[in-house]
Amino acid sequence: LVARMRAFGTTIFTEMSALAARTGAINLGQGFPDTDGPAAMLERAATAIREGANQYPPGPGVPDLRQAVSEHRKASYGLDYDPDGEILVTVGATEAIAASVLALCEPGDEVIAFEPYYDSYAAAIALAGAVLRPVTLRPVEGRFTFDPAELRAAVGPRTRAILVNSPHNPTGTVFTRAELDEIAELCRERDLVAVTDEVYEHLTFDGVEHIPLATLPGMRERTVMISSAGKTFSVTGWKTGWVCGPAPFVRAVQTVKQFLTFTASAPWQLAVAHGLRHEMEWVSRQRADLEAKRDRLTAGLAAAGFEVYRPAGTYFVQTDIRPLGFTDGLALARELPELAGVVAIPTQVFYAHPERGSHFVRFAFCKKEAVIDEAVARLSALS
Amino acid sequence: LVARMRAFGTTIFTEMSALAARTGAINLGQGFPDTDGPAAMLERAATAIREGANQYPPGPGVPDLRQAVSEHRKASYGLDYDPDGEILVTVGATEAIAASVLALCEPGDEVIAFEPYYDSYAAAIALAGAVLRPVTLRPVEGRFTFDPAELRAAVGPRTRAILVNSPHNPTGTVFTRAELDEIAELCRERDLVAVTDEVYEHLTFDGVEHIPLATLPGMRERTVMISSAGKTFSVTGWKTGWVCGPAPFVRAVQTVKQFLTFTASAPWQLAVAHGLRHEMEWVSRQRADLEAKRDRLTAGLAAAGFEVYRPAGTYFVQTDIRPLGFTDGLALARELPELAGVVAIPTQVFYAHPERGSHFVRFAFCKKEAVIDEAVARLSALS
Ligand SMILES: CSCCC(=O)C(=O)O
Ligand SMILES: CSCCC(=O)C(=O)O
Repeated sequence: LVARMRAFGTTIFTEMSALAARTGAINLGQGFPDTDGPAAMLERAATAIREGANQYPPGPGVPDLRQAVSEHRKASYGLDYDPDGEILVTVGATEAIAASVLALCEPGDEVIAFEPYYDSYAAAIALAGAVLRPVTLRPVEGRFTFDPAELRAAVGPRTRAILVNSPHNPTGTVFTRAELDEIAELCRERDLVAVTDEVYEHLTFDGVEHIPLATLPGMRERTVMISSAGKTFSVTGWKTGWVCGPAPFVRAVQTVKQFLTFTASAPWQLAVAHGLRHEMEWVSRQRADLEAKRDRLTAGLAAAGFEVYRPAGTYFVQTDIRPLGFTDGLALARELPELAGVVAIPTQVFYAHPERGSHFVRFAFCKKEAVIDEAVARLSALS
Repeated sequence: LVARMRAFGTTIFTEMSALAARTGAINLGQGFPDTDGPAAMLERAATAIREGANQYPPGPGVPDLRQAVSEHRKASYGLDYDPDGEILVTVGATEAIAASVLALCEPGDEVIAFEPYYDSYAAAIALAGAVLRPVTLRPVEGRFTFDPAELRAAVGPRTRAILVNSPHNPTGTVFTRAELDEIAELCRERDLVAVTDEVYEHLTFDGVEHIPLATLPGMRERTVMISSAGKTFSVTGWKTGWVCGPAPFVRAVQTVKQFLTFTASAPWQLAVAHGLRHEMEWVSRQRADLEAKRDRLTAGLAAAGFEVYRPAGTYFVQTDIRPLGFTDGLALARELPELAGVVAIPTQVFYAHPERGSHFVRFAFCKKEAVIDEAVARLSALS
């Protein structure tokens, strides 16, 4: 393994899901729902297979999906993206992030990301030979946020891009307009490219609104906006994502993407086009359902003794384990199947400064109510 | 776009397939069949969708597919690979190649590849900041081969790996044991890693046998062996490939792969496991059918005035356009829809020395007989 990747082992998701499979513990680790997406959308994929969509689709993506994404961006946020040249279909948001970072960052360039971050961010930056400059999100009155001064201080002459994930995994923070304004101002001032990971865009709670960074003044022209079907439609295994942005950015991302995987599978693309056009009501029911599950799990975890950060979006709740007498989240997560028959994600692996996250553990609530209840019952044994 | 990728534009496959779509020309460019894989295998994928295989599968791949690949490697070549740790499922061979090169090559390392090469090889090497050392395949008595002295001369102190594609796209060469012996000897002598792209392993003609490099003495331990389902089962759009090799290599490739796309979709994996177990007779009929199509297209192209290199494997026939009075394959390919209503691939884009390949054009014969006949009829107008 090359030097720049030696800090990376098996991703925590693979490690923890394998642990769940091995021990039979309830898996509240990796973020995938235990119920599937809309039936008509699944059926569309099955039909596409039968009707022969099994060969290479066009490199930039199936035209019908690019069209549907364009309409969806317009309808959701008033953003205009040309399906021909400003939209690229990828193998999930993970590929979109990797291809964006690899396309934009020269060796030695710096990239800002808010820690804790989805672990592929640090890996993509390392693969590019670029340097990660983490800005820490810290709890303030029960919600994770950043210090604008710390963000400003992280920008230097080599800063090329900033990765912005909102709704934020793992903390559940949805950036406010004020927070996004701080980021946008910095991007405009210092000529940074924003790469946004908005895969939880439709999964926000309590009426909190998701605001794409690209909708802020002067930002559409400098933002590579990434989303995907996995979370919106509960088909995390379909690995169908998309990049929207100005044509020169999208062309650059495509140049890299085509050599990572060539294309993404057509049957998913056709089904997701159907989803974006016809299943947004399903998505809003799903959102409401998820909000109830969030309440169920947060209440249960609080009763079990965790300090709980109530998320405004995503699949996840971030907790502090210290009230239970634990201090090392990674050690606890590895023992949790034995201690309580539950698997969770130790958030410290998402920190460049692990000590800042050592006492946090993340639980997923995109699970059936009975599963959440059983997990909570088991976790109550910890205190 | 970063400097190291500036030499790469839109891949020729996307350019030429878009040209075919725009002009309505017969597409003998990009390699995908116009008939689908075995019906029961397609049905298996459709069933998997209905039965809920729509969430993230395990990172290394669905266990049943890893098991099936292991059995298939044993049955086909007597090679033993442990499904746990020596096999990794990828988003097609393209991702496997990218992840292998990115995992193995430090900036400045050198990688040998035989030109002409599938264009992702050069791109993956550039992405890694490594240096491509091309060794040219040249026609000798109607078959493309390399000069062993030239191969030896390409190895230097920084040489890390050699990419070996056999059956070879685009020339149709299937390396002989003698040729593989040359390569293996060099790998052992100079401690090189071999990364083999064997996606056409089951598509050889005239009784020519495909020999995996890993079966040669001392080679299993230094070979990252790559294959995929796309060509074997006529499902090029499923993007399901695999890497077999010693555990430390596979672990290194997985470390990179997990941050490129995280996982490959489960429904394809389940269906491909079925294919490897139950559809190898379908594959051998497919092989025979493809051989007849090769004969049909090579005869037609020869009659139309092309110099034809009869391929011993793959989907493709390499031709020399000079007998028809053309000298620039790229220019010809771009005009061919207008001149003759056909799309083909100018092989020169697969050369580090474009002048060595400027007069070659590749045609795909994985098409219905009527399509081949019509293309041949149209191409006859060229002379
Ligand atoms: C590898 S999974 C992508 C993100 C996610 O689902 C998680 O954080 O669990
Ligand atoms: C991008 S396609 C992979 C190889 C192939 O099919 C081709 O060479 O046409």
